This record gives sequence, structure tokens and C-alpha cells, in this order.
Amino acid sequence: MYKLLVINGPNLNRLGKREPHIYGSTTLEELEQRIKNVFNNQCIIEFYQSNHEGFIIDKIHDVEELYDGLVINPGALTHYSLSLRDAISSISKPTIEVHISNVHAREEFRHKSVIAPVVKGQIVGLGLKGYELAITSLLSVLGGEN
Amino acid sequence: MYKLLVINGPNLNRLGKREPHIYGSTTLEELEQRIKNVFNNQCIIEFYQSNHEGFIIDKIHDVEELYDGLVINPGALTHYSLSLRDAISSISKPTIEVHISNVHAREEFRHKSVIAPVVKGQIVGLGLKGYELAITSLLSVLGGEN
Amino acid sequence: MYKLLVINGPNLNRLGKREPHIYGSTTLEELEQRIKNVFNNQCIIEFYQSNHEGFIIDKIHDVEELYDGLVINPGALTHYSLSLRDAISSISKPTIEVHISNVHAREEFRHKSVIAPVVKGQIVGLGLKGYELAITSLLSVLGGEN
Amino acid sequence: MYKLLVINGPNLNRLGKREPHIYGSTTLEELEQRIKNVFNNQCIIEFYQSNHEGFIIDKIHDVEELYDGLVINPGALTHYSLSLRDAISSISKPTIEVHISNVHAREEFRHKSVIAPVVKGQIVGLGLKGYELAITSLLSVLGGEN
Amino acid sequence: MYKLLVINGPNLNRLGKREPHIYGSTTLEELEQRIKNVFNNQCIIEFYQSNHEGFIIDKIHDVEELYDGLVINPGALTHYSLSLRDAISSISKPTIEVHISNVHAREEFRHKSVIAPVVKGQIVGLGLKGYELAITSLLSVLGGEN
Amino acid sequence: MYKLLVINGPNLNRLGKREPHIYGSTTLEELEQRIKNVFNNQCIIEFYQSNHEGFIIDKIHDVEELYDGLVINPGALTHYSLSLRDAISSISKPTIEVHISNVHAREEFRHKSVIAPVVKGQIVGLGLKGYELAITSLLSVLGGEN
Amino acid sequence: MYKLLVINGPNLNRLGKREPHIYGSTTLEELEQRIKNVFNNQCIIEFYQSNHEGFIIDKIHDVEELYDGLVINPGALTHYSLSLRDAISSISKPTIEVHISNVHAREEFRHKSVIAPVVKGQIVGLGLKGYELAITSLLSVLGGEN
Amino acid sequence: MYKLLVINGPNLNRLGKREPHIYGSTTLEELEQRIKNVFNNQCIIEFYQSNHEGFIIDKIHDVEELYDGLVINPGALTHYSLSLRDAISSISKPTIEVHISNVHAREEFRHKSVIAPVVKGQIVGLGLKGYELAITSLLSVLGGEN
Amino acid sequence: MYKLLVINGPNLNRLGKREPHIYGSTTLEELEQRIKNVFNNQCIIEFYQSNHEGFIIDKIHDVEELYDGLVINPGALTHYSLSLRDAISSISKPTIEVHISNVHAREEFRHKSVIAPVVKGQIVGLGLKGYELAITSLLSVLGGEN
Amino acid sequence: MYKLLVINGPNLNRLGKREPHIYGSTTLEELEQRIKNVFNNQCIIEFYQSNHEGFIIDKIHDVEELYDGLVINPGALTHYSLSLRDAISSISKPTIEVHISNVHAREEFRHKSVIAPVVKGQIVGLGLKGYELAITSLLSVLGGEN
Amino acid sequence: MYKLLVINGPNLNRLGKREPHIYGSTTLEELEQRIKNVFNNQCIIEFYQSNHEGFIIDKIHDVEELYDGLVINPGALTHYSLSLRDAISSISKPTIEVHISNVHAREEFRHKSVIAPVVKGQIVGLGLKGYELAITSLLSVLGGEN
Amino acid sequence: MYKLLVINGPNLNRLGKREPHIYGSTTLEELEQRIKNVFNNQCIIEFYQSNHEGFIIDKIHDVEELYDGLVINPGALTHYSLSLRDAISSISKPTIEVHISNVHAREEFRHKSVIAPVVKGQIVGLGLKGYELAITSLLSVLGGEN
Repeated sequence: MYKLLVINGPNLNRLGKREPHIYGSTTLEELEQRIKNVFNNQCIIEFYQSNHEGFIIDKIHDVEELYDGLVINPGALTHYSLSLRDAISSISKPTIEVHISNVHAREEFRHKSVIAPVVKGQIVGLGLKGYELAITSLLSVLGGEN
Repeated sequence: MYKLLVINGPNLNRLGKREPHIYGSTTLEELEQRIKNVFNNQCIIEFYQSNHEGFIIDKIHDVEELYDGLVINPGALTHYSLSLRDAISSISKPTIEVHISNVHAREEFRHKSVIAPVVKGQIVGLGLKGYELAITSLLSVLGGEN
Repeated sequence: MYKLLVINGPNLNRLGKREPHIYGSTTLEELEQRIKNVFNNQCIIEFYQSNHEGFIIDKIHDVEELYDGLVINPGALTHYSLSLRDAISSISKPTIEVHISNVHAREEFRHKSVIAPVVKGQIVGLGLKGYELAITSLLSVLGGEN
Repeated sequence: MYKLLVINGPNLNRLGKREPHIYGSTTLEELEQRIKNVFNNQCIIEFYQSNHEGFIIDKIHDVEELYDGLVINPGALTHYSLSLRDAISSISKPTIEVHISNVHAREEFRHKSVIAPVVKGQIVGLGLKGYELAITSLLSVLGGEN
Repeated sequence: MYKLLVINGPNLNRLGKREPHIYGSTTLEELEQRIKNVFNNQCIIEFYQSNHEGFIIDKIHDVEELYDGLVINPGALTHYSLSLRDAISSISKPTIEVHISNVHAREEFRHKSVIAPVVKGQIVGLGLKGYELAITSLLSVLGGEN
Repeated sequence: MYKLLVINGPNLNRLGKREPHIYGSTTLEELEQRIKNVFNNQCIIEFYQSNHEGFIIDKIHDVEELYDGLVINPGALTHYSLSLRDAISSISKPTIEVHISNVHAREEFRHKSVIAPVVKGQIVGLGLKGYELAITSLLSVLGGEN
Repeated sequence: MYKLLVINGPNLNRLGKREPHIYGSTTLEELEQRIKNVFNNQCIIEFYQSNHEGFIIDKIHDVEELYDGLVINPGALTHYSLSLRDAISSISKPTIEVHISNVHAREEFRHKSVIAPVVKGQIVGLGLKGYELAITSLLSVLGGEN
Repeated sequence: MYKLLVINGPNLNRLGKREPHIYGSTTLEELEQRIKNVFNNQCIIEFYQSNHEGFIIDKIHDVEELYDGLVINPGALTHYSLSLRDAISSISKPTIEVHISNVHAREEFRHKSVIAPVVKGQIVGLGLKGYELAITSLLSVLGGEN
Repeated sequence: MYKLLVINGPNLNRLGKREPHIYGSTTLEELEQRIKNVFNNQCIIEFYQSNHEGFIIDKIHDVEELYDGLVINPGALTHYSLSLRDAISSISKPTIEVHISNVHAREEFRHKSVIAPVVKGQIVGLGLKGYELAITSLLSVLGGEN
Repeated sequence: MYKLLVINGPNLNRLGKREPHIYGSTTLEELEQRIKNVFNNQCIIEFYQSNHEGFIIDKIHDVEELYDGLVINPGALTHYSLSLRDAISSISKPTIEVHISNVHAREEFRHKSVIAPVVKGQIVGLGLKGYELAITSLLSVLGGEN
Repeated sequence: MYKLLVINGPNLNRLGKREPHIYGSTTLEELEQRIKNVFNNQCIIEFYQSNHEGFIIDKIHDVEELYDGLVINPGALTHYSLSLRDAISSISKPTIEVHISNVHAREEFRHKSVIAPVVKGQIVGLGLKGYELAITSLLSVLGGEN
Repeated sequence: MYKLLVINGPNLNRLGKREPHIYGSTTLEELEQRIKNVFNNQCIIEFYQSNHEGFIIDKIHDVEELYDGLVINPGALTHYSLSLRDAISSISKPTIEVHISNVHAREEFRHKSVIAPVVKGQIVGLGLKGYELAITSLLSVLGGEN
């Protein structure tokens, strides 16, 4: 059974508490539980959240040995953390980038992702559902579907 | 049962024939059949492809009356067709933008979507699977899920 | 009696149906009728709307032979259709560009018109009244006023 | 009867004397007289010209109390006077910006108006006739027309 | 005997009628006849002109099956039609881009071709003779010359 | 006892009358009185407001001889008046720039101050209180505190 | 009694040791003591310094529950840490940004603050006194003054 | 005998008092006297200084009737006063722009002159001597030399 | 019989030796011989190659007196030598710019030619054949063809 | 004997494991051992690697007290960590920046170093050898050579 | 008696022959003779012209030993020859840059001088007279005038 | 024994004479002698200096046949000589770029090297020692070290 890691970056620990008109009212814990329920028998999913770029990089390095794929919502690190980009480049496991809100309809600085060129794909603006779609996609890739 | 429209823009009629290292070898007809099979009993899906910006705009206008949601891969119109953008703005039904390849890992002009700010969300780089994820997401939105 | 053509570009067929806080609630048909009434005995006015850049260019070419002047609201083609620009350059009849809303108070991409350098003048943000002012101005030009 | 103010900015006192291939040979006095004649019984129109940004701002402030609407040709202040912009923002009466020549067909610096986002509309390139169209439009707005 | 297609884009139907100081006074029909005469016994040449981006894309797709090479003057589409670019990318036959006037000595927007990176070569500013040089070059390529 | 000058630039005479959601409802007269009261026995404060760049420059020149320090809210001159900048450079007395609203949360053109590099410091977005803080700071500087 | 947090970002632990011509010779400990003395009976002030973006974000999250307001000098994080920006956005307590030196008179990269649009206000270039002014301002805001 | 006007713009009244390392220690009055002495019997020279853009524009308009040529040092207006530019364009008398210091070796904003394209020539960085060279040059032009 | 000059700029002496995947394996001497053979009885052709901008400029000056036309491949001077541009501007004989490879499909700096605005036309990407096409075109121009 | 610190930034712990076509197959441990061997009797060298910007800054601060010089390969922090830059500025010991690969031949974002202006020098693209050259250079500087 | 060098750069040997509407009809030889006559008894003037950047640099190096000052019209090298700039920086003798035409009223690339920041001053647009003014100014500087 | 060439570009003949605060007081001859001494028995080193781009290109071409490696300090040609870049590209021998001063701490134009993408590596800011490090590195590369 595939083992996947879902990383949430800076400030996503405040999901459901912060700016609910943008991010909704579900908390990070509820989101994680919900995802676990959906993919209950299909794969093992672990979660990690940190506000520290360094710890997230350490964790991405672990993916190479310990997981089959990675879903990452890097929060605002998306827009400037070239170290995160290099960390993702340095592993060979498939990675999908997720953003809860439609970043292209928000401030200009959110339009650009320095991560995007090194991930397999992006899911943007589809709410918390985006995490589930990313996992579905990863499973499809790992299962050898086109 | 929800009725959805999937629009493919310029040059996507050449899917499976053109640059297979980027777009794979499945033809547009095969893709459409495959999607129909996947969502067989869940919703009605219709398909439209055109190389003409004008006909695509006409078709988007139809969505307001005849469909419950729209999935669109605008091809290269993504990057400059502000008329397409206004057409999507002019309808109230949820719209999701799909790109087969990871446009952010290709030429710079493909990084920018003039459509992105007016759609609900984007699915990028997840291959033909991206269309299915988009439809799943639309059904989730229409079904009132978060 | 002068014969004028009024062209409305992409998405203007949805006038009165789309984003009424920007464009008001008068439909295109009502607008055309209203203009006809205002200039009833002063000149002959014909109308054309299309979502197709190509058909609009064909129609502009006709102006040279069949009309004395042109009023055009190119919709979003304003911002990128250099082909439209060349079509207008290729005719010698006076042309006036109209925008219903104040494009300078909206998204940045609407601030620039690639058409503007080749028309006689522009009327921006004065609502549907803008079409009447444009025709008044054309008649004044054709009548030889300064 | 509505009372309107028409302000002409720097160098427009040289109208008819300066660069007649661009601005024509009518003087400012003749223009003002002509406008008065056209709208003789329809409204009261007063005129003001100054080469001083400060006096023009003072005058705009007066509009709030003393006039029903403003027509302004700010001359080259159009392109840099953010103070003028703030002055117009600070009043609630409808304002229309007029340019005699087609600024978009001239030097690049003339393409941009810092005033445009805070006025109701713009009339560009329609010669001295532009002032009349602006007043017509103001009367239409004040009269409650769409 | 090789079979070549020559496509002329928007507004080139007005050749010889429009801006003769730039494009000369030969009409499109005369140009096509002249080219036919020059290459009479060397190859079969067919011509196509349209003001519609969509029809031109459809026609380019035909080249893959029906022709040995393509000469294209995309008119103003040169500067923005990324769909045209993708259409040319999608075929494997050699393509040469022609511009009648020296676009680099005209307005800045004409300096850039979005088509240029995907064609074999460009001929610019050599008048109607440019079409003949392009065909000569195509024949040379097809004939295996360096 | 130190003698300080507080200059308010263009449109600040409309404080309390204009856009109260941005600037509040206190008038300039009330503001000046309030500041006088706060610093009653600590220093002498004089006030000057003008919509004229030229008069403000004249007044700044006076600071060198007549005052010990300057607080200035240059209004929109902040963003373009390089003459104001040179005037401040030309005096040796400490100067503090004040903006009532958070200019960095407003239109982009307000983000840049051409004055900032030549003043001692800036106080931005702290409302009318900002003037008091500026005076406190000036007194601290004049009193020789770090 | 209000409880406020003062955060100092990367390298500010070297205050008084590093580049004294820019930052003076007072150490961070002395600064903190001085501020405590000034506001002795007015409010409770706690201090935090870190060179780690992640720990600063964690600390900002604490403000929502544990403090009434925040004064922050983010050091060089000011210019690129969009994660810091989002952390500040995610709390509802008033925040004021302080810079000791006049960043606008230094290297160009220091002119821009990605934090500025989400704080209440900024105090720049007023030396260590800036921290006191910020606290004074926070107390005024919390006390309901205009 | 030719009659020339020398205009000095904002802050040049502080010549000799302000930033002597850049502008030297000669005052404006001394400069004017010195120039008068040099050209004593060759031409009539009048001087004008103002910190007001508006008064300088008024004065430039006078040149057309009252003087044979103009020497202008517009101070910082050089870099943004498009109204000054239009004023100079509106007169037919030869105009020479003078800058005392080498503006190209100072801050970047001083490198650009919006006046330069409409004057006959520029003399930059040659100190107060630059005024004399400008007058010599004007006399040469007026005298019909090459 | 017309006499033409063909100039090859820096590094083209290494043709056939350098980067053969871009420039092919024909040497400069072979190319020159081949061109001579093709146009044997039609015109006199002389060749010049130099790595020195200065000598190329000297040679271009000679064209005015000694030749009827010029074909030039300026190598990398194309992208920055404004002196070369002025040299070509200074002669009245027709000049055609040739590039062997499709510069628009290579590094970005090769996309721009500072020479292009002052030559009659450009031939790009058509290999060594491009020189022959250029000469054919020059002969056509000299022979008075359209 | 001099004591030097060699810091390797984010992702350099994956040296020899990640993208060997760029970075080679030597691991970080092997590299550190190799360097120690080379400079065995010449100086004391200590090594530090972290994926955390904050810890690297802490470590740089230590240099001031504990080491005589610093060699740093900041990984991707090179391109955005202005905090790192300020940390290096805050110490007085000589610092040399090393990059293993030729960053100027890679993605554009790698061309710019925000660290470069505050280090003594840079060694780029010379492989692992670059670290040795940096130490050699530091020793030379410390030894007082030119 | 002072000894001055006047250097003319690329293409200025064609003065009087090339584009006379810009540069007039006086040849370089006539210009040099004229200047000699004007300053006959005042100083020794030598002239140098070359189309070779390298020879001009060599000549500038000679100035340090052999001349008291330099007047240079670098032709188009003005806009890109940073080597020329460094050559001028490397000598301590006063240098004045001259341009015959008003480069600011010509193509945009001519507006920028890479030489300007390292010369004493510039004289632009004053025709051949500009050389005389430059020499007058040099003599004034050498003679110790302000 | 390996034979290496060291090229110094424009103005480096003035080393030790020009701007000693930047370049030190060692002359080029002394530098060359010193390098020879250091590598006395290890390799043969030849030196070349020229102020002429053309001669430097000629010399680089020689490297292919006559030398095993190249060290080049191109002076200001670094920043614009694309011809130099192409010359280096055209040879297969390893090349290292050296700059004596830290160009990244000087004027902005010195930050960019058009040569950098085509050399093996760069050594910047390490003084004259940089040449020795470059040769050491070349010998290491030639000797097959990593």
C-alpha cells in the first residue's frame, strides 16, 4: 500500500481560524481527519505542518526514503523559497502542489510559484477538495495510469 | 443529473498526433470516450473542440442556459485571449481550467494565464487525468461540498 | 445622408445580461433601437455584433466601400487584436472607439488599447450615451466642422 | 439650470497660437465663446484656465459647492499631477476629462493619464468638439439618463 | 513534384489597396499569379488567405497530410497568436515566415514574432520578392541541400 | 523653546470633508488645534497648508532661518515632486514625513515617496496621531536623545 | 493594563555591535530595558528576538491569544518574507512596523516592505526612539483615540 | 541687440547656500551679475527665478514676444514637468537647457530630462560657466552661424 | 555588371570548425567559393571577414564608392554594435542582413538586432542558402523589380 | 594557526545523492574529509551544514568571535536571503562565497546573488575544487598578501 | 600653453557626407581647421578620428602623459562602450563629451550615454559649435575658473 | 607540460597606474612576472593584453591550436562583448573568467557578465591572487581532478 506525505507550510496551522472568507472554517486537524477517512483503505497518509522552511526541507529529504509521493501546500513559501524548490528537485518521488484559494485572483505576488517548475502538477483554487484530488492523482501516477 | 461541458481549444484536435513527448499518444476522441466511461452514471458530459476563439466564446455563452458547469482547456488562447476571459466572466456557472502538461516547466509565455483570475480553479500538469479531477471537483462544488 | 456602421465586439451580445453593475441592464437590442431613434432623420445607422475577430475584420474592410464612418466597441479585442488595428488602418473612413465603462478604473490590462493610435478618437466611461456622442462626433467630422 | 465649470490646464492659453497642426487655429477665447453659444439656454457654463497646478486644485475644490459638474482638460498635468487626481477624488460632482488631440497617437508619455481612474469618463482626439460632447454627457448624467 | 502552400493572414486581402507606401500596389491576386508563373514547372503552389485565426489554424493542420512545405505571412497575428505558433509546432513540414515590409523599421510591437522560434527561417523586408525567395529556400531544403 | 513648522500639502485642506473612510472626520483646523494643545508648554508650533508646490517650497526655505525642525505631510506631492525633495535637501534642520493613512495598503503609486531618502524619518498610517509622534520625535532629536 | 509584544528579527541581536554608524551603539538588552523604563506603569511589554523566520511566525500566532498589540522590526525579513506577512494578516491585533534607520536612504532592496500593506502603520528612520513611538501609538489605538 | 532671458527654476535661489560641494559658493545674485558683466556689450540679458512651475510657464510664454532666446536651468522640474516641456514646445525661440552639476554622475532620477527632446541643446556639468557657454551658443545661433 | 560585397563578422572565420550542430560543416572558404559559382555570370562578388568592428566599419564606408550593394552577417555584433548600425545608415547602397541559424530559436540576446531597422531586409535561419537568397534579392532590387 | 569555518546551506547535505550531472557524486562527508586532508597542517577547518536559514545566521554571528574567516556556499539562499546578507555584513572577518556549478549557465534566478556585494569574493563553477581555492585565498588574505 | 586632444569616434570621418539633415555639410577636415583657427593663439589642439574602439582607448591612455585635457565625441560608442568609459576613468585629465545633434530628440537608444558619469560635462545638440564651447570650457577649468 | 594563455582586456595595461584604491599598485608587468614565478615548473604560461576586442578574439581562436587552457579578464568587455562570448564558445579548451575587484559591490552594470554562461567558472574579487587560483583550477581540470 502506497505511503504518502502531505506537507502544509507556514500559517496553515491557523486554517479555520484565519481569514475564513478566503480559507473556510475547517481546521487543519479536521482537514487531516477528513482526508484520512476518504482514502482509508487506499493508502497510508501522513501529515506534517511547520512554519519553518528548514524543517520542511528536512522533511522533504525524508520523502526519498520513506514515502512514495508528496502533496505540498507551501503557503507563502511558494513565492520565494528557492531552497524549497531545490529540496523538491533533489528527490525523485512525484510531488503535487496544492493551493486552497485561487491565488491568481488575489494579490499579484501570489500569482508566481517558484515551486511550480519542479513539481509534477498543480491544483489551485479548488478548496480543501484540492488535497483529495492531489492524492487521487498521485495514486493514479503511482499505479501507472496515463 | 448535472450536465457539464468540456471545451478544448486550438490545436487540441491534434492530441495524440502532435508532440507526444509532451501530450502523450491518446487522441482527443479516445480521451472523450474515456471520460464518458468514468462518469457514466454520475453526470451528463458533452464535448466541444474548436480552433476558433469566436466559436468557443459562442459556446461558453451557451453554458449559462444549457449546462451546470464548464471544464476548459483553452490551449494557447490561455495566454492572450482576453475575450475568452470576458466570456467566462459573463457566465455564473462554475468553471475549471485544465492544462495537460506542466505549463510552468515550459516556455515562459506559457506561465501566465489570463483566464486564471476568473475561473474557480486550475488543474495543471496532471495529464489527461486532469480532466477527470476537474469534473470530480465540479460535481463536488455543485453538490454543495466545501 | 451619411451611412454609419456601429460594430460591437466579443461578449457585447451579453449586454444587459452580464455584470449589470458594470454595464447596466439595457440589452444590445434595446441599445441599438435607442440609437436609431435618436438619429432617426440625421443619418442611416447599421449595427453588427460578433464574437469572431475574423468576421469583425471582414466587416471593417466593407466600411471602405459601403459606409461613411465607423463606431467600434471592440470589447476585449481592444487590448490585444493587432489584426483589428491593421484592419482599421487599412480603411480611410473616420473611426471612433467607444468603451461603456471607465476602463482606466478597472483591471490594469484594460488600460491599454492597441486600437487607440489608429482611430480618430476615443470615448470612454460615458455609458451607452458614449455611442450617441461618437455618432454626433462622426457627423460633425463628416460635416466638416473643426 | 445646471451650472458647469470647464477648466483648461497649462499651455492651453496658447491654443490657436501653438502647434496648429496638432491643436488647430481656434483660440481659447473663441472656443469658450463657441461653447457658450451652443449651450446657451441649456445650462450655465463658466471657464477657467491656469498654468498653475495649485490654482487649478483650488478651483476644483470650489466645484463641490458652486457647480454641478466639471469638464477638465488638464494639459500635460494629465500625465503626472497626482495632486490633481486627489483633488478630483475629493469632490463628489461628476467630472469628464477631455483631450483635443489623440494622445495615443503621440509621444508615449502622453498615453497615460493619472486622472483617468478617478473621472467618470474621457473624451480623446475629437478636437474642440470634445468639450461639447463632454458637456452633453454631463447634462445627460445630471438629468438622470443611463 | 513538391506541393507547397502559401498562407496570407489578416488584412493581406487588402494588399495593393491599403497603405501602398508600405506594401506597394500589387494586389494579392496579382502576387499569387506572379509566383505561380515564376515556379511554373518547378512545383505546385496553392494559396490561402483568411482574416480568421481559426481557419488559418485549420489550414496549417492540413499541411501535415497534403503539402510538402509552408510559406506563411501571418500579418499582425505574428505578434500575438500563440495558437498559430502551436499549430506550426504541431506539424513536421518545413515552414518559412515572410514579411513584406521591414517590420524592424516600423512600430515597436511589430519587432517581435511569436512565430519565429518555431519556423525554419524568416525573410523580412524584401517586398513581394520575399515569397519567391521563401519558396526557393523550401525547394532547396526539400531537395536536401545544405 | 523650540519652534517647529508643520506643513500640509495639496488637498489636506479638505481633511474631514473628503473620503472620511480613509482620512477620518476631523478637520484640518481641529487637527491643528489639537496638536497645539498637546504640546502647549513644550514647544511653539506653527502650521501651513497650501495646494501650491511653489509656496510649499518657499516655506521650506524659510525653515532654515526661522524654525528648529519641520513636520511635513506632502499629500500627493510625495510621489512626484522632486523639487520638494531638493528643497528639503537644501535645509539642514531635521524633517519628518507624515502620512495619515497606510499608503502601502492603497494604490501602487502611493507606495513610493521621492521625499523619503532626504528626510530623517517617516511615520505612516498612524492617523492624526502621526503628527504628534513626529513632533515628539523632533523634540527628542533636538534635545540630543539617541 | 495592556500587554504588548515587541519582536526583533534576524541580526538585531547584534545591535550595538554591528555597523554602529547605521544602528548606533546601544545594545538590544539596553534598548529593551530603556523601553521598559519609559512605559513602566503604562503597560506590560515583552520582548522576543530570533534569527529564525519560523520562530517569529510561531510567536506572531501567539499574539492573537496572549497580547493586545505587536511592534515588529523584522530586519531583512521585511523585504522578502511573505510568510511573515501572512502571519501578521492572520491575527487581528494591531501591529506596527519599526525600522531604526531610514531604509529609503539605503540600498534599493531596503525600500520595499512586503509587510507594510498588512500592518496598521510604519515608523522609519527615527532611531531607537521609533520603538517608543510605536508603543505610544499602539496604546493610543487600544485606548480608542482617533 | 539681442535680448535673452535666463530662467532658474526651483531651489536655485539657494545657490551658494545649499550643498556647496555640489553647486559651489557663488550666490544666484553674484552669478547673474557675473554673466551680465561678461556679455556687457554683446546682448541684453534678463534673469528670472521662481520656485513655482506655473510662474515659470507664464514667463516662457512671454519669450515668444519679448525675447530672442532662452537659457533655462529648470532645477528638479527637469525630471517631471511635462507642462514645462509643452511650454517650451509652444514657443519658436531657441532654448538651451543648462545644469550646473553633472547630473549623470548623481542619483538615477536626475539622469532623465523630459525637457531635453524639445530644446535645441544641453550643457551639463560645466558649472556656472555653463550659463555663459549657453549664451555664447544662442548668440551664435541667432547670428546665423552653423 | 553589378559589384556586391559580402561581409562576415566576428567568429565567422571559424565556420565549419565551430559548433557544427548550429552552423554546419562547410568552411567560410567553401561558402565563398560556392556563392561565386552560383552567381558566376550574373555579378561580381567580393568577400570580407574580420573579427574587428573597426575594420568592418571602414569596409562598409567603402561600399558607398566601390560597390552596388552589401550583404552582411555581422555575427554577434548584430546585437550591440550601434557603430555598425551608424555605418550602414551612412551609406545609400541597399544592404541585406543574413543570419545562418534561426536566431529566434536560440538565446534571448540573439533575438534582437540593432542593425535591422537600417537595412533593407533580413534573411534568418535559412542556412548558407541565405547568402544566395540575399544576393538574388539585391540583384532584383538593383534591377528595379518590385 | 588560522581557524576557518566552511558553511554549506540548504540541500547541500544531499550532495552526491542529488542531480549528480550537476553536482557530481562526492558526498558532503567525503568533501569535508578531502578538504581537511588538503589543508592538514596549514589551518584548522570546521564544517557546518544546515537547511535552516536561522541556524546559519546564528553560526555566522559566531564567526566574529571564534574564527578567522568564512567560506560559505549558501545554496539557494544565495538568491533571496537578505537576512544572510545582513549577517555577513555584521561580521568583520573575510568571507568568500562558493558555488559548485556555474550558476550563470543555469536557470536565470540563479544568476543573481544577494550575498555577493558583501563578501570579499566569489568562486563559481569550479566544482568541489572551489572550496579549496577559497581557503587558499582566505589564507593568503589573512597572511597579508595582496 | 595648454595642449588639448579632440577625439572623434566611429563614422565621424563621414561628417558632411552622411545624413546632412542631421549633421550638416561641413566635413571633418573643415571642422578641424575651423577649430584650429578659432583657438589659434590660445592653445595647441590635436585631432584624432578612428572607427576602432581599441585605437581610441589607446589614444585616451596617451592623454594622461601628453595632453592637458580631452574633448571627445564617441559617436555610437557613447551608448555601449564600457571600455571607453573605463579608459576615461583611468586618466585624471578633464574630459568633455560632445554630441553634434540633440541625441535626446532622436532614437531612444541615443538618449543614454555610458560615458556621461565619468566625464566632467556634456555639450549636446549645439552643432559643430559644441566643440568650440567644450574647448572654451576646458581652458576655463585649466585656468582655474569656477 | 601544459601551456596556458592569460588574456587581459581593455585598460588592464593601466593596472597599478589607475584607480589604485580599486586595483592596487602592482603593474601588469609585475603581475605577469609574479604568476610566472609561482607556476615556474608546473606549466608554461603566456600573457596577452589588448585594448582591441578584435585582437582578443583573434587570440582566443589561437587557443584551440596552441594552448591547453585560457584564463581571461576581459575588463569592461565582460559586460557587452557578445563577440567575445561567441569566440570562447567556439573553442573547446577550458576557460576561466577572472575579475580583480568584487564587481558585485560596484556599479550595477558591472554585475552582469555576458561571458559567464560560456566559461567553466568565475573567480571574482580575490585580487591578483585570483589569476593564480584560476591557473591552479585549470591545472586541476586538465589533470583530471574532479
